[in-house]
Amino acid sequence: MSTIFSKIIAREIPARIVYEDDLCLAFHDVNPQAPTHILIIPKKEIPRVAATTAEDKALLGHLIHTAQTLAKNQGLHDSGFRLVINNGPDGGESVPHLHVHLLGGRALQWPPG
Amino acid sequence: MSTIFSKIIAREIPARIVYEDDLCLAFHDVNPQAPTHILIIPKKEIPRVAATTAEDKALLGHLIHTAQTLAKNQGLHDSGFRLVINNGPDGGESVPHLHVHLLGGRALQWPPG
Repeated sequence: MSTIFSKIIAREIPARIVYEDDLCLAFHDVNPQAPTHILIIPKKEIPRVAATTAEDKALLGHLIHTAQTLAKNQGLHDSGFRLVINNGPDGGESVPHLHVHLLGGRALQWPPG
Repeated sequence: MSTIFSKIIAREIPARIVYEDDLCLAFHDVNPQAPTHILIIPKKEIPRVAATTAEDKALLGHLIHTAQTLAKNQGLHDSGFRLVINNGPDGGESVPHLHVHLLGGRALQWPPG
C-alpha cells in the first residue's frame, strides 16, 4: 500500500507542508473545507484508524496532540476548531493512509456531515 | 470544573454506557446525529483537546483507539464511521469536558459541518 500521501512524505509530490517530525507530517488540504484545513498524517503507512493496534496508541496520541498544537500555531485556540478522522465508506475516507483533519477559521456546523 | 460528564462518570446522572475502563467511559449521545453516536470521554477532567499537554498523549491515543474498538463492536468497521473532536466556539464544543464523537450507520457528508 502506497498512496499519494507516501509520495508527499517522500517529497515526490509537492504539498504546502506546515510541520514535520520523526513520526508525522502536516500539510494544507488541497480541497480546503474551511479557511484553515490541515491534514496530519503518520509517516508509518497505516491505512485507517480501524487498522491501528494497541501498539499504535502512542502514535495516535502524538497525531492528536500535534493537531491541537498546530491549531494553536494557526491562531485557532480561542476561536475554536474541529478534528475529524474518516474511516471507510460511510466515513467518507478518501485516501487509505490515516489522516487527521484540522478545520478552523469559520463556525463549523452540526451535525458534522 | 465539573460538568454533566463528571456526573455521568460518578453515576449521579444516568447514561446509556457502552464501555468503561480505568481511563475512560463511553456512552450514547443523548442527541444522536447518526444511527450510532457514542461519546468517548476521559475520566480525567480535561476541558478540551487544546488544554492537553504532552503528558496526555497516551490518554489521547487510548481514547482514539477505544473509539475505533467500539466502532468494531458496533459493527461499523466495514461500513465506516467518523471520529470528531470539537474545540471552542467555532468547533461547536458543547460540554467543556474533552470527548470524542463516534458516528456511524449512515453516509456522513462532506464538509464535516
